[in-house]
Amino acid sequence: MHNTSTLTKARLFICLFSTFILATGLLFSNPAAYAENTVAREPILVTGHSNPDTDSTASAIALSHLLNQLGKSAVPMTQGPLNPETKYVLERFSVPAPELVGNVANRNIAIVDFTDTPQAPAGFDKANLVFIADHHKLGNVTSSSPLEAWILPYGSTATVLYQVYTYYGIPVPKDIAGIMLGAILSDTVIFRSATATDKDLESANALAKIAGVDDIAALGMKLFAIKSDISQKGSMELLQRDYKEFNMNGQKIGIAQLEMTDSTPALKRKAGFLSAMKDMKEKTHSQSVLFMLTDIMQGNTTLLVVSDNPQLIENAFSKKIVNDEMKLPGVMSRKKQLIPDLEKAFRK
Amino acid sequence: MHNTSTLTKARLFICLFSTFILATGLLFSNPAAYAENTVAREPILVTGHSNPDTDSTASAIALSHLLNQLGKSAVPMTQGPLNPETKYVLERFSVPAPELVGNVANRNIAIVDFTDTPQAPAGFDKANLVFIADHHKLGNVTSSSPLEAWILPYGSTATVLYQVYTYYGIPVPKDIAGIMLGAILSDTVIFRSATATDKDLESANALAKIAGVDDIAALGMKLFAIKSDISQKGSMELLQRDYKEFNMNGQKIGIAQLEMTDSTPALKRKAGFLSAMKDMKEKTHSQSVLFMLTDIMQGNTTLLVVSDNPQLIENAFSKKIVNDEMKLPGVMSRKKQLIPDLEKAFRK
Repeated sequence: MHNTSTLTKARLFICLFSTFILATGLLFSNPAAYAENTVAREPILVTGHSNPDTDSTASAIALSHLLNQLGKSAVPMTQGPLNPETKYVLERFSVPAPELVGNVANRNIAIVDFTDTPQAPAGFDKANLVFIADHHKLGNVTSSSPLEAWILPYGSTATVLYQVYTYYGIPVPKDIAGIMLGAILSDTVIFRSATATDKDLESANALAKIAGVDDIAALGMKLFAIKSDISQKGSMELLQRDYKEFNMNGQKIGIAQLEMTDSTPALKRKAGFLSAMKDMKEKTHSQSVLFMLTDIMQGNTTLLVVSDNPQLIENAFSKKIVNDEMKLPGVMSRKKQLIPDLEKAFRK
Repeated sequence: MHNTSTLTKARLFICLFSTFILATGLLFSNPAAYAENTVAREPILVTGHSNPDTDSTASAIALSHLLNQLGKSAVPMTQGPLNPETKYVLERFSVPAPELVGNVANRNIAIVDFTDTPQAPAGFDKANLVFIADHHKLGNVTSSSPLEAWILPYGSTATVLYQVYTYYGIPVPKDIAGIMLGAILSDTVIFRSATATDKDLESANALAKIAGVDDIAALGMKLFAIKSDISQKGSMELLQRDYKEFNMNGQKIGIAQLEMTDSTPALKRKAGFLSAMKDMKEKTHSQSVLFMLTDIMQGNTTLLVVSDNPQLIENAFSKKIVNDEMKLPGVMSRKKQLIPDLEKAFRK
């Protein structure tokens, strides 16, 4: 009895189905299902990580524009003041700086260039996460509903977002193309970083064309000249400029990086940096504070180390710490050349 | 002095750069950077969640093929025996079943159709995660290196993977197109689920063309007829068939689902199911075990409830539990219609 009844229902269903659904396809008019997760009329706050850099800032602006083009209301935000390089990029392409983000509890949120909760704004654990674009290792953020996450191993989040624009067939406006180009050049160290891929070069060339930038390398060098000028900056300010916190097997580790076209002036300020690192370690109750002084012309890093367990840092890289520093030839990427070895050492 | 030196270096760099890098682009021959994260010569194990279903099995096979086409060595795996529906789909399109996965510690791993560690194979916390394809909420998996993650809010992971094939310009082979089509039909309940999107319909139509399937709806109904035939199956077997564990605010919750073209026979076996649910709750030390008996023709669910805190379950859906069950008209999706409300209730 049940078999017959099921079969009859099935035949009826197939008939209705073939006629209405497959023939028309009109029932599916919603182009992106995650819209259903967002609270109606409330804009999505799009933000990069704490201590914003050029990639996280440009990517927040780029994703915000894309979401608006897809019919969601979104606004770009920043978690802190912009560094001189980022300010230059926004001014050069006439893009206004994002506003400071407040507590994001009970708000819709999209995050770019990070997936670790220590780098998220206050109230993040009570926010509704709807979108992620990133190019780092996957951190500990989670969501309560299906979301959209584009995490691709390219040299910058701007490169990832250029793929998302292409996927949705949304044109990149001229001004946003300019800041995305700046983000790629900054994050890939003008394609010299170990994280740089052919997609970064391809995307940069396409974005330069849209933005009307003829000399990509000259723009890149201008950015690094701005970043390299540390003469007017205090030690703590430079330490904090690109400082990221990580949780490694339960231990809090802070890792800062300065990328310079010439690291000589920075190396002369080592004593001041070590003092700032000790203050930072105490203030943040960290197990270690590391500072990468990266010379992008020479392609190497001097790592300053303040740690409760220097032996562990030495083990991670099979190198000795001499006078609070470790020479790391060929190392330019925190994400790809420092973090994985450190995490392995901390897990042992 | 430093300014002049930096400028000279910069000019030299721009010159070299423009000539060699931008003109040729040949330095970037590696099409996907995550290859660098994989241990040489060791294949990537591609696996779906525990209690494999058709989407997780077909997606493991589809992603494995894609990775091989991209030059990585990969093999599809399964975490357990296949259900009757999945077996039918593989046989219908002549695709061999994946082998059982063992402990994945120190192996390269790609995961499909889940991102929650309770659904991962043994040794996952010591594995090197290189790729994720999914369509659920983002769970608690993390990685130690940059990875590739495609998480899109479509109705099936197979739909997401069809986008990845398109992104890389890799053609889907006929047999794999067939099982991906089966996965979409199964996971979207033939496009009737709340999770179904226009991308699922588009992808299914494209895959049907490749696979040579003329009548998509008939294939879908065949799958649900197989799934609906519970006459020869024990209560515990049916409970375990699509049983997923979740961690909700520190509490372990098990949620099973049976999707049927006619739920009448299942409703008659309520006493047996409740008894199996009590055994399961005790064995797994869970706070609640829920069982969704979903009638895909009527488009509703009868939720059987065994819980230490039935009041919390009632609050989640603003409904009363009567005789250990709750009627949920219009509810067909565990992921989209059950989990978010439950998580909210558990967080209060």
